[in-house]
Amino acid sequence: MKALTYQGPNNPPQLNDLPKPEVQNPTDAVIKLKFSTICGTDLHILKGDVPTIPAGRILGHEGVGTVASVGAGVTNFKEGDPVLISCISSCGTCEYCKRGMYSHCVTGGWSLGNKIDGTQAEFVRIPNAENSLYKVPAGVDEQALVMLSDIFPTGLECGVLNAKVSPGSTVAIVGAGPVGLAALITAQLYSPSTIVMIDPDENRLVVAKGLGATHTATPDKAADVVNGATEGKGCDAVLEAVGIPETFHQCQELVAPGGTIANVGVHGVKADLHLENLWDKNIAITTRLVDTTTTPMLLKLLAAKKLPAEKLITHRFKFADMLKAYDTFGKASQEKALKVLIEM
Amino acid sequence: MKALTYQGPNNPPQLNDLPKPEVQNPTDAVIKLKFSTICGTDLHILKGDVPTIPAGRILGHEGVGTVASVGAGVTNFKEGDPVLISCISSCGTCEYCKRGMYSHCVTGGWSLGNKIDGTQAEFVRIPNAENSLYKVPAGVDEQALVMLSDIFPTGLECGVLNAKVSPGSTVAIVGAGPVGLAALITAQLYSPSTIVMIDPDENRLVVAKGLGATHTATPDKAADVVNGATEGKGCDAVLEAVGIPETFHQCQELVAPGGTIANVGVHGVKADLHLENLWDKNIAITTRLVDTTTTPMLLKLLAAKKLPAEKLITHRFKFADMLKAYDTFGKASQEKALKVLIEM
Amino acid sequence: MKALTYQGPNNPPQLNDLPKPEVQNPTDAVIKLKFSTICGTDLHILKGDVPTIPAGRILGHEGVGTVASVGAGVTNFKEGDPVLISCISSCGTCEYCKRGMYSHCVTGGWSLGNKIDGTQAEFVRIPNAENSLYKVPAGVDEQALVMLSDIFPTGLECGVLNAKVSPGSTVAIVGAGPVGLAALITAQLYSPSTIVMIDPDENRLVVAKGLGATHTATPDKAADVVNGATEGKGCDAVLEAVGIPETFHQCQELVAPGGTIANVGVHGVKADLHLENLWDKNIAITTRLVDTTTTPMLLKLLAAKKLPAEKLITHRFKFADMLKAYDTFGKASQEKALKVLIEM
Amino acid sequence: MKALTYQGPNNPPQLNDLPKPEVQNPTDAVIKLKFSTICGTDLHILKGDVPTIPAGRILGHEGVGTVASVGAGVTNFKEGDPVLISCISSCGTCEYCKRGMYSHCVTGGWSLGNKIDGTQAEFVRIPNAENSLYKVPAGVDEQALVMLSDIFPTGLECGVLNAKVSPGSTVAIVGAGPVGLAALITAQLYSPSTIVMIDPDENRLVVAKGLGATHTATPDKAADVVNGATEGKGCDAVLEAVGIPETFHQCQELVAPGGTIANVGVHGVKADLHLENLWDKNIAITTRLVDTTTTPMLLKLLAAKKLPAEKLITHRFKFADMLKAYDTFGKASQEKALKVLIEM
Repeated sequence: MKALTYQGPNNPPQLNDLPKPEVQNPTDAVIKLKFSTICGTDLHILKGDVPTIPAGRILGHEGVGTVASVGAGVTNFKEGDPVLISCISSCGTCEYCKRGMYSHCVTGGWSLGNKIDGTQAEFVRIPNAENSLYKVPAGVDEQALVMLSDIFPTGLECGVLNAKVSPGSTVAIVGAGPVGLAALITAQLYSPSTIVMIDPDENRLVVAKGLGATHTATPDKAADVVNGATEGKGCDAVLEAVGIPETFHQCQELVAPGGTIANVGVHGVKADLHLENLWDKNIAITTRLVDTTTTPMLLKLLAAKKLPAEKLITHRFKFADMLKAYDTFGKASQEKALKVLIEM
Repeated sequence: MKALTYQGPNNPPQLNDLPKPEVQNPTDAVIKLKFSTICGTDLHILKGDVPTIPAGRILGHEGVGTVASVGAGVTNFKEGDPVLISCISSCGTCEYCKRGMYSHCVTGGWSLGNKIDGTQAEFVRIPNAENSLYKVPAGVDEQALVMLSDIFPTGLECGVLNAKVSPGSTVAIVGAGPVGLAALITAQLYSPSTIVMIDPDENRLVVAKGLGATHTATPDKAADVVNGATEGKGCDAVLEAVGIPETFHQCQELVAPGGTIANVGVHGVKADLHLENLWDKNIAITTRLVDTTTTPMLLKLLAAKKLPAEKLITHRFKFADMLKAYDTFGKASQEKALKVLIEM
Repeated sequence: MKALTYQGPNNPPQLNDLPKPEVQNPTDAVIKLKFSTICGTDLHILKGDVPTIPAGRILGHEGVGTVASVGAGVTNFKEGDPVLISCISSCGTCEYCKRGMYSHCVTGGWSLGNKIDGTQAEFVRIPNAENSLYKVPAGVDEQALVMLSDIFPTGLECGVLNAKVSPGSTVAIVGAGPVGLAALITAQLYSPSTIVMIDPDENRLVVAKGLGATHTATPDKAADVVNGATEGKGCDAVLEAVGIPETFHQCQELVAPGGTIANVGVHGVKADLHLENLWDKNIAITTRLVDTTTTPMLLKLLAAKKLPAEKLITHRFKFADMLKAYDTFGKASQEKALKVLIEM
Repeated sequence: MKALTYQGPNNPPQLNDLPKPEVQNPTDAVIKLKFSTICGTDLHILKGDVPTIPAGRILGHEGVGTVASVGAGVTNFKEGDPVLISCISSCGTCEYCKRGMYSHCVTGGWSLGNKIDGTQAEFVRIPNAENSLYKVPAGVDEQALVMLSDIFPTGLECGVLNAKVSPGSTVAIVGAGPVGLAALITAQLYSPSTIVMIDPDENRLVVAKGLGATHTATPDKAADVVNGATEGKGCDAVLEAVGIPETFHQCQELVAPGGTIANVGVHGVKADLHLENLWDKNIAITTRLVDTTTTPMLLKLLAAKKLPAEKLITHRFKFADMLKAYDTFGKASQEKALKVLIEM
């Protein structure tokens, strides 16, 4: 089969011919991909930021496909079933899974395109298939569905839920990339009164307005816009969707007493925490690797036409043009790219 | 009346003769003190760490007494009622009070011994008396009760509740001063399986063992003890009850995936937050100025003999010996002092 | 002033000339009404269903007006302030108020038009004014605002919140009167995937469709419609907004395992509870008199144009035509009346 | 192997020689029992109250043993592992399991001794073994551990947690049988101030006092005792641990405004619900079949010596004397029996 493989730090990935994966354990399934996509994390991998990934690993942790084969212990899925692949593999029964922390499953977590071969391929093996795959509800757009592998549960769980967005809340989202925009869309499931979207890219702010932001601001104007929108109190929910010290610092300036800073970004270095200002402000700061425990809820909303996930797809490529897809996604600002859909 | 007043940074406080306070607003009450105490915060004030406090201010925000007089709008309390004074004044009706954030009451918060005259005096005026005083339940030890003005709600709310201590939890408390020990006692209301108490003062660790700690450690041994007690996972609930960057940093090393660092300490400078390690660890960090919303619950438990608050009182002084009381409390380690009780 | 008074069971109310109320306690305010309305409860009163109400009582517990005068203990409001009157009077500081149970305030609760004179008058005295009145946010439609005195917090708190409506939930609302429709509107703040509205009145079902119901049914079809919409599982949230044994019984047939029946209706007699079917179904049944603790949130949403409260106003009358207003509201089905707005 | 089998309504069960069970599915395990016990539910079965159970079924849903063999899909357990058997079988991955409702697992739930052969036998087959068995922590008393198969999670989940027992709560438990007493013990994990235990059997009330009840009462005195202990308010948490209309009715009289009636009992007929009294009392009524999601927490507490589960074992029998054990348990009041432990 064709598959896109990592070639070590700062080398371009390659489209290779590799053997089709097989069921190895009774709880495995093999999925024939129909659609996949590229994540910002994949770009980090290419730069060498995830040093544990060996050269030769098939990339990708998002996708929709059909079941090709299942192990003897898999009873909920059978050949031919259309399925959504979760970016998180989980057994459902270990200590962490029982607490809903699938991200920390002792035999799973973020495995695909990381610890095992991933979804930028014609086929992929999914361990613990019963808990890591989801049946596609009738009538769901399978292209939009790819957005539910990772960015929608990530924006919702790490951002919206951790920050306790609720009716009448004031929300600031720092970073209008795909995950920040998925947070913007899912925040609206809880009816906040105000959502301020902050990003240096003016195009993305325009997109954010179209997706429901009540206010937008470039970072230099963010404090003024937030203060203007909140009577100077700051926002109840502040989402960090970038992953650098500067943006994390800005979140500390935007949060209201009693509010939450929900970190969504992937950080490579430490940041300053201004406890001398925050110790008596009754705030919370949260971190989270997505657990994908909200996937069943998101599937219901997508089926009910209440989740405009497809709006984040800006470009479409055939799998044969995968390198071109990476190129476009890598120049996201210039190409006005959000998510690029890959058709297998 | 006699009252202890602040004399500016690094000057000793003075016992002065001052006019007895009067009801100024219809919602005020004036309380005749029976017992007061000294808080670690008072020592900070004497050093000049709270620069907004003017010389001449009567110190103190803890106390038990009887109602001397009430304003026309106060109907729940009458002359002669024995009452507990909360360290937080609150109206009960502003935006923050309605959310249970009495600490941020727009006309109150931490006022006593700070924005207005405090409780280290024979009499004190309490604004918004109906929401800031509590009737003393029958049969309650009024000396133990003084511990409920501040340190018990602080340990419970900022520490135990924010950290979500629950049955079977593993808990680490960094700092075995009065507030850390109040957290130790109130943590046990929720039946954790493990409580590791961490402090450089060996005497305080012995006290902690007697108050229910399952393990104790000096800071250099803390990581080993926590790992040994938690199969290397770290603690679900880590309470910072010191207020310096080193201890906050240690908390980041002790917290388990899915856990919470609840900051209780008062911080004067920023600290490093190692987001590069924590971003995917599904943790929360919380800060809080005590709201004293748990005071009614603590009163019920004290009345039911289920809260050994009196165990934190190590020394007793007459009000005339107030300067000596400060001296003893200021040399807490040497004097093996926890809370010093002042009898008016 | 003019005021509408109760005249004993089954007598028509009367528009009388009565003395304007005055401030009696330091925490009182007197409000000059601009708008009021009639509640289904008022019709119950006229029939004699609330026997504690004496003849001569001024009716009404809903309204918007301006502050005419305040007691010495009221500092948040001053003459001329436009205010929303809550149907629940509360001190904010008693045991129940501190728990958010304003409905059970020991000196308040549902007082207006019940224990004390109400809002169907040119002026009304409001005890505990600071916690029982709300400032009108800038730009809010004061007619729509009247809906926030009672029916919106009632539908939201007793119905939507008690039933834990959340994104992707399936909801059934039994009863499409004003409160049931307010529940329908506020349920959508939490993005359920399905809302089945059930009522024998076909006109009200048409209204419900226009307000966001995904399905409607007359009671005889309700079980079929719910089963069809939920793969036979029943609804996660079932709201009883009628108040008779038959509708409460129907709710027990519509609720899914793990779901909640939130009672909103006022019941005059007992009902059968089929514990032989429900004991192992992991459900909850809740009851509640509205606390109006959500009023601040509803005000924010109304100001943000995210709450179409005005859509429930079907008729408007001058106060002089109050008896005609009662007549129209009393024939709600025939007149296609939901809420009738009274202009003072 | 020897096994105790059901012989149809009102016939005594029989000890038979039957084939040892084998692994049938890759997710099965077969367990060699060391200890089992008898549940009140088993007595109901013998009377014919669970008509779906066929004659010949091996009874029992509680037990501790060692793994004899596992299917190919079971990786967490291996031959020789000591294990606790949960009374609830669950896959961990179906819609209900993902919500923590193991009781409603689409392929599991209460299966043992009901839909499939149970644990009153030398060996038992456990489907979905990874999610339905628990490793025995080091140092745990395996006899006490048998109490964690059913009655402790039942008392805790259906009773204590559903009723939201919390520090300072007032609690009433109607029924001092084994499950009511397990609720009494686990309620104390949350430090209520008051626990009133109600039962007609004076011996059981004495036992309850010894296990931590602050008050006891026979049913005729219950209202007086509760009112005396709660200043006439009623209890915040009322647990129904009997299962008949009379006791459910009594709970409605004992519950305080804002409180919860948590039904634990198994009901065979409907009961009256006095909505005419309760509609405005802000209460909740909950039902639940135990999910055993708290088993990991209970195991931690048992290992930490913080759960005196062994105190409910009053009698011990060898498996060969199983019929005698049933006889003793059937005459519980006369024999002063709580739980009878069966050694295989």
